[in-house]
Amino acid sequence: MRIKKIVEKTVPFGSAIANSYINFNKMTSSAVAVVTDVVYENKPVIGYGFNSVGRYAATSIIQDRMIPKIMNAAPKDIYEEDESNIDPFKINKLLKKNEKPGGHGDRAHAVGAIDMAVWDAVAKIEQKPLYKLLAERYNHDNYEKKVYTYGAGGYYYESDNMNQLKDELKSYLDKGFTDVKMKIGGADLNIDLRRIETALEVVNGCGSRLMVDANGRFDLKEALDYGFAIKDFELKWYEEPLDPLDFASHQLLAEYYPGAIATGENLFSFEDARNLLRHGGLRPDIDSIQLDPPLSYGLVEYMKILKYMESLGWSSKCCIPHGGNQFCLHITAGLGLGGNECYPGVFQPFGGFADDLSIREGYVIPTEIPGIGFEAKANLWKILRNIT
Amino acid sequence: MRIKKIVEKTVPFGSAIANSYINFNKMTSSAVAVVTDVVYENKPVIGYGFNSVGRYAATSIIQDRMIPKIMNAAPKDIYEEDESNIDPFKINKLLKKNEKPGGHGDRAHAVGAIDMAVWDAVAKIEQKPLYKLLAERYNHDNYEKKVYTYGAGGYYYESDNMNQLKDELKSYLDKGFTDVKMKIGGADLNIDLRRIETALEVVNGCGSRLMVDANGRFDLKEALDYGFAIKDFELKWYEEPLDPLDFASHQLLAEYYPGAIATGENLFSFEDARNLLRHGGLRPDIDSIQLDPPLSYGLVEYMKILKYMESLGWSSKCCIPHGGNQFCLHITAGLGLGGNECYPGVFQPFGGFADDLSIREGYVIPTEIPGIGFEAKANLWKILRNIT
Repeated sequence: MRIKKIVEKTVPFGSAIANSYINFNKMTSSAVAVVTDVVYENKPVIGYGFNSVGRYAATSIIQDRMIPKIMNAAPKDIYEEDESNIDPFKINKLLKKNEKPGGHGDRAHAVGAIDMAVWDAVAKIEQKPLYKLLAERYNHDNYEKKVYTYGAGGYYYESDNMNQLKDELKSYLDKGFTDVKMKIGGADLNIDLRRIETALEVVNGCGSRLMVDANGRFDLKEALDYGFAIKDFELKWYEEPLDPLDFASHQLLAEYYPGAIATGENLFSFEDARNLLRHGGLRPDIDSIQLDPPLSYGLVEYMKILKYMESLGWSSKCCIPHGGNQFCLHITAGLGLGGNECYPGVFQPFGGFADDLSIREGYVIPTEIPGIGFEAKANLWKILRNIT
Repeated sequence: MRIKKIVEKTVPFGSAIANSYINFNKMTSSAVAVVTDVVYENKPVIGYGFNSVGRYAATSIIQDRMIPKIMNAAPKDIYEEDESNIDPFKINKLLKKNEKPGGHGDRAHAVGAIDMAVWDAVAKIEQKPLYKLLAERYNHDNYEKKVYTYGAGGYYYESDNMNQLKDELKSYLDKGFTDVKMKIGGADLNIDLRRIETALEVVNGCGSRLMVDANGRFDLKEALDYGFAIKDFELKWYEEPLDPLDFASHQLLAEYYPGAIATGENLFSFEDARNLLRHGGLRPDIDSIQLDPPLSYGLVEYMKILKYMESLGWSSKCCIPHGGNQFCLHITAGLGLGGNECYPGVFQPFGGFADDLSIREGYVIPTEIPGIGFEAKANLWKILRNIT
């Protein structure tokens, strides 16, 4: 088989929301299609991918720098030995060629978007849902029948903040989530404490059903102030309290804050993840790592990170990818991770799962159609089907 | 005054060389022009910039994501209070808006290229060479009358490696350099040792006139093997022995290797630099930090890093920027850094200094014309003058 062409198109996210750090309404993503010459039912197999939420399209990096590396490569550097399918590990190696070490940012999102499209194509060529392919190849045929997820949101509102927050979080429970996540750090500590208390009312006062997310905006002093103020709520986790690269402050916060900490969505490489694990003082028995494969050189790099984590005594159950998309849902199911984020209603059309898959008691299942299942999410499929 | 427009153009580097990590012949840079409405001698003042060597153009990041942030901003967020000039600190703040923390890669090069063009415009508007403006504003009017530099190269050759290496390094001494730098890690240790001995012959056996550069390719074991093998040469420094983000290995190497270590050209933010200084075990009395401002969010970020270094007891003399361009030459002179790299003949047209400035006994001086002085480097000026 052969890859016939690879196409990138820049697509807006169009979410008119803000967290404590940024405004999302100008955010874009790169949608990628890997078109193959394999044909099933008279249709060519095309793999689709995109980079995840929170960053921007990697337009020229993908078009001018990455796609030519694949299109100009020898078949032996792209395909499996019998040329029956694409080898995602070879693609990863190709895309990292002539790239200096360090500086894992937009380039990592570019490679991640292509990696996602490649895995979609690989699973479609094997005519399997991706989670099953991953389970067979890398997890002794074990997979999760259902995946833990939670409703992420809890935004700031300009007027009637507390009631709107309550309504928003209630709507997530109505959708079938049991746990919800809210933003903090966009207001003073006192206001945020009232917001947290309001949110706790929605989950029957049960701290283990509520996460708070500071989006990396605190310095150590602020992170400690919030940590001391919230510790008695015994929340499910305290997310991204600090700049993601401020490992030393994570270490100190983890000494003082007894509850669970979650971070990693803004670390985009094996090397950065390793530094968090080496220097961040996180605790394998309670903390969560949230690296996001499509932002971080893709699943190939992610599996390298999982292997390193394992060598340090971290279970794959500690990994709960950021972003809330179908690719990560398959990865979570197929490799047995701890769960997968979900942003109900926002970051469309890329966020969320297939249309006919409802959330039940806080769990979701991946699609059974070959590949990642983008074809079963109408608003996303409308975009993807038109990029070639 | 007002910025009328900002333009980006992608330009090839065209250096047919390789180090132990990458091949440079497909490398590109973003050239940027900031066109103002200020007029001197009937010509509009235009500031020029580019991102430095070793990475790629940041085309769509600059064009689609960064330039609109400036062009759509309110004047109070761009200019000095009296509107007589651009405020580079305000530009930096604008460009970092709606950008999440972490992931300091191509984005940092995009901001760096614009920052360079802004500083060129700012100095031209004040009708001063940039180094004098920097000295006045930030260094109590002190500046270096001449700047230490060295001839970086020492490449691998396909045939007659030792003689060609010798000829190359000799040509640098003929150009006025006293010290030279060569690549290592692209061959076996034994061959590299012969190459180092060959290079030492060129500098009269004087280790303090030779640096070796591994371009970040060793793991700890290899870095230690090389370190033990070369330590008796007492080289000027051992550069980028390890992956730039592998701080823990730097710390151990610095415990075992008694000579000077230099690194930092592939760290692109304050947060990454801080981690090197916190976790890398480097020694302020002997080691060098080589962060490259145009790759790292520009001079504004670089001054923040210098301030942090000072707070830890590091002198600005420990800083020797990577890349070898005129912008860094002005920064080194104006802020009193330890020196500035030079790549004689390669990475053209962006690398190197003004045409009429020869190297004398290992030192170079910046231009005296207003701004950075690109107009005095014919091959570069030919490119830059045409991008608007």
